[in-house]
Amino acid sequence: MLSKNQIKLITRLKQKKYRLELGFFVVEGIKTIKELLQSNLELHMLFTTQSFNFDAKNEVIITDTELKKISFLKTPNTALAVFKIPDVKPIDTTQLIVALDDVRDPGNLGTIIRLCDWFGITDLVCSNQTVDCFNPKVIQATMGSITRVNINYVDLESFLKQVELPKYGAFMEGNNVYKTTLPNKGVLILGNEANGVSNSIENLVTNKISIPRFGVLQATESLNVATATAILLSEFRRG
Amino acid sequence: MLSKNQIKLITRLKQKKYRLELGFFVVEGIKTIKELLQSNLELHMLFTTQSFNFDAKNEVIITDTELKKISFLKTPNTALAVFKIPDVKPIDTTQLIVALDDVRDPGNLGTIIRLCDWFGITDLVCSNQTVDCFNPKVIQATMGSITRVNINYVDLESFLKQVELPKYGAFMEGNNVYKTTLPNKGVLILGNEANGVSNSIENLVTNKISIPRFGVLQATESLNVATATAILLSEFRRG
Repeated sequence: MLSKNQIKLITRLKQKKYRLELGFFVVEGIKTIKELLQSNLELHMLFTTQSFNFDAKNEVIITDTELKKISFLKTPNTALAVFKIPDVKPIDTTQLIVALDDVRDPGNLGTIIRLCDWFGITDLVCSNQTVDCFNPKVIQATMGSITRVNINYVDLESFLKQVELPKYGAFMEGNNVYKTTLPNKGVLILGNEANGVSNSIENLVTNKISIPRFGVLQATESLNVATATAILLSEFRRG
Repeated sequence: MLSKNQIKLITRLKQKKYRLELGFFVVEGIKTIKELLQSNLELHMLFTTQSFNFDAKNEVIITDTELKKISFLKTPNTALAVFKIPDVKPIDTTQLIVALDDVRDPGNLGTIIRLCDWFGITDLVCSNQTVDCFNPKVIQATMGSITRVNINYVDLESFLKQVELPKYGAFMEGNNVYKTTLPNKGVLILGNEANGVSNSIENLVTNKISIPRFGVLQATESLNVATATAILLSEFRRG
């Protein structure tokens, strides 16, 4: 059984402002929920249409109709959970950090979080205009990686001004990354999908890098920000 | 004005079977349509809610309500075009080829096509179970790259048996790609999102490669197939 208050809470959590205010976020789908249950995230509520032996207290069995009421998906999954948003830790500036300057697409942010996890990046720093990492579409795309990457939303300009690390930025006209010696600590900055790195951030970049296009034929004008992140992180980590 | 026949044709093109039968596909959005108009693709029909000076004959101005009728999108764009599916060219086996073994997600295929374009891969070979490259969501994700990559759907097992090239496959337990000397011709094989490369294809792989995870901590169990393609193509092309 779902109470009115539960429905109200979950519906509100669609909006970033309520997520921030209430400190909870929603996850749908058994696979991702299971991943998050294995982490140190705190479960607040769990609704399923059939018991999945989640070994979780708070599991409430509901009907398909009830799930439809609270699901954010057009074709609801069989489970929906509400977790507490974890406390963020201070940024560790002794390692390689990834910084995002206004990445807007939830799928891209989710993929980047998963890449950070794969490549051992513990700190992801996002400009305040970057899409919220607790957006349900981001959570879906992270495949559980959200629990292993510490994500801070900051005034990116102030952060970069303070931090004493080399600042690598992805630019179309940057130096060939394959011919660049990359450090094992620094900040790797990726820009917005349409506009790239903004001017105010560009001024703070110490090293502009670029992934060269292969061949001379006319090709796609740019790489997607998530695939560019994949290739650049691979370059930083390949040794 | 839209005719009944035009509506019927466009609606049918949602389905792969009609795309194959009729030889047309649908593109929505001004940016992608403009890209395709600059290619050697043949335009069949173009509907817009306002003239965009596309410099295209066949431009028909329609109302928002009419566009809504034919659009595949929940929030229709301002333009929809129907293009002729181009003839496929024979596969050039003197170069690096990318082969997909049942990639199902349209976004992933679109991203991979864009990556092929960037990295100068002229031939993409897809198993017959791979998502259709003229699926509207694929077209959207390719950002025009679809016109510069020759895509063949084949019985992948037969193709790989015939072709006399080294066959590199992405496997979790493959050799560290960063320590592998990669050729400038061969086939790079990527598998299905959930199951990876299938057994029958695995038997034909001559070199299993893998992108190593960084660090020893528990991390995401795998990379997304499109980001893995990005990193592997980068390794093949970085020289």
